Amino acid sequence: MDKYIPIIGITMGDPSGIGPEIILKSYLDDNINNNRLVVIGDFDVMAAIAEQLKITTIKLNRIKDISEYKFDNKVLNIYDLNNVDVSKLQPGKVQSMSGNAAFEYVKKATELAMEKEIDAIATAPLNKEAMHKAGHLYPGHTEILAKFTETKDYAMFLYDEVLKVIHVSTHISLLQVIKGLKKERVASVIELAHSTMIKLGYESPRIAVAGINPHAGEGGLFGDEEIKEIIPAIELKKNKKINVVGPEPPDTVFLRAKEGDFDIVVAMYHDQGHIPLKLLGFHSGVNVTVGLPIIRTSVDHGTAFDVAWKGVANENSMKEAIKLAIKLS
Amino acid sequence: MDKYIPIIGITMGDPSGIGPEIILKSYLDDNINNNRLVVIGDFDVMAAIAEQLKITTIKLNRIKDISEYKFDNKVLNIYDLNNVDVSKLQPGKVQSMSGNAAFEYVKKATELAMEKEIDAIATAPLNKEAMHKAGHLYPGHTEILAKFTETKDYAMFLYDEVLKVIHVSTHISLLQVIKGLKKERVASVIELAHSTMIKLGYESPRIAVAGINPHAGEGGLFGDEEIKEIIPAIELKKNKKINVVGPEPPDTVFLRAKEGDFDIVVAMYHDQGHIPLKLLGFHSGVNVTVGLPIIRTSVDHGTAFDVAWKGVANENSMKEAIKLAIKLS
Repeated sequence: MDKYIPIIGITMGDPSGIGPEIILKSYLDDNINNNRLVVIGDFDVMAAIAEQLKITTIKLNRIKDISEYKFDNKVLNIYDLNNVDVSKLQPGKVQSMSGNAAFEYVKKATELAMEKEIDAIATAPLNKEAMHKAGHLYPGHTEILAKFTETKDYAMFLYDEVLKVIHVSTHISLLQVIKGLKKERVASVIELAHSTMIKLGYESPRIAVAGINPHAGEGGLFGDEEIKEIIPAIELKKNKKINVVGPEPPDTVFLRAKEGDFDIVVAMYHDQGHIPLKLLGFHSGVNVTVGLPIIRTSVDHGTAFDVAWKGVANENSMKEAIKLAIKLS
Repeated sequence: MDKYIPIIGITMGDPSGIGPEIILKSYLDDNINNNRLVVIGDFDVMAAIAEQLKITTIKLNRIKDISEYKFDNKVLNIYDLNNVDVSKLQPGKVQSMSGNAAFEYVKKATELAMEKEIDAIATAPLNKEAMHKAGHLYPGHTEILAKFTETKDYAMFLYDEVLKVIHVSTHISLLQVIKGLKKERVASVIELAHSTMIKLGYESPRIAVAGINPHAGEGGLFGDEEIKEIIPAIELKKNKKINVVGPEPPDTVFLRAKEGDFDIVVAMYHDQGHIPLKLLGFHSGVNVTVGLPIIRTSVDHGTAFDVAWKGVANENSMKEAIKLAIKLS
């Protein structure tokens, strides 16, 4: 029996950013182009970036339906939404045309994934300001995906070879993080950490839960959120199946995970997980939204308007996002 | 004219911990023993650890007054407070005898520094639990030093070759950090960052102030502490003399500092600064209390009771703390 080869949809991201370039450059790599990939974006933009970068070894194939897909490692399939007028496109600028296009790619990719036309989505970066200018008032990708898949219980997982972190909260103020911290949510993220790591091939993933206060509260001396919310959540999930410890002092738990003591860290807030991950894996980090009914990975950086369309953007994170989408499919 | 050689007092730390060992091992290094150092501690404990480690090349010199100091790189001077009965000392255990001794060393060192008998203090780790057991209810070294020097405006500075961080707050709950954040304090820590870096030889140190919320609040979308407290503090201090920018997104500011964009980062809370520093410089980080009328550096780790008196403790952070105390004197 032939092994099923999944189809990964790659959203092109904001056309004025580095998305088109890092996708095209990723496809030069044989570890990438020997998979079934389809760009959900604009054919004309991909053609323009290929010309700009003088990349002639990849043939672009415009498709209007996944059934038109052609499997050839010298051919990059573009599911053309035709949202951009290339003559009006300004590299490195916030444009409502680009913001709208980036939003539409994600929306279409989500629909295709929900209809099982594609097996996973890897997203290139969008620019929030441009998206807002176009009237789509989402904080980011994750919220668009949650909306169109009607999902409530999801979490941001940052994946890097040496450090894996899942977040209890993300794009809210630190005050809201503390006031809104609930054991049910912490427990559900511990569960998501476990199930995601199982999917990634870990037999019994070692999960460490970070505290929220310095020294994990030092027994209530520096805050009681550990005692009231985090410890009960850990007790609730600690069983034969789930191998979880904590709350661990936040300042050393990431170092210990990096050194091999734990497979994944449950972080309480955005920066607690992002600071160590960005420090270690700035060019190789992948962002995965876990808990959705579809698989979605993403680069862990922005549109980098300052270097857009100049041929100097680093495509490593895009490649890692594509590889992880394949692995999870 | 001869160059003045400063005398550095090294507090021995909790006798049951790794303090005595890392001090003795540091003194084996010619970069260390060619300076004027005096251990503020217990002669008998230092003699016991020398025997335990079979270190015979260093002669210990018991003194009761700094005037008895002998300058010889084969001789380690011990200002003997005689607080410990070695026959009752249990390595790796919380003992009130040890906790009391560790406290007394710091108190005496502070007095000697205030009286200019010594020029700076480098502290080995104490164990808070042991110190509390002995009835000295301080959260840590810093608070003892602040108390005995009658200082209100001080800050914890973490120093590593590749990353330098100063903290607006330290050992309080995250909720208190947010509720207590005041522009006056942020401004005063920016000032301390500047003056400390000048002392360390930077001509015009580039200071980056981290935000407190994800993406530094994203213009008020994820919290308004940046707008209300941090930006006004930066505006207050930004002048011809002080080169300060921010608030910067916390998740990338440490990476950017590490890569050379900034010389020092002002962190809003304990873990914001400690997570990146521990990840990068676990064995070489030094903790400096700035704003005190005396110079004080410290190892950036604890008593490590699990490996105490076994000869395997890493003395790098102790060496770095001594070197930095010399540099600042």
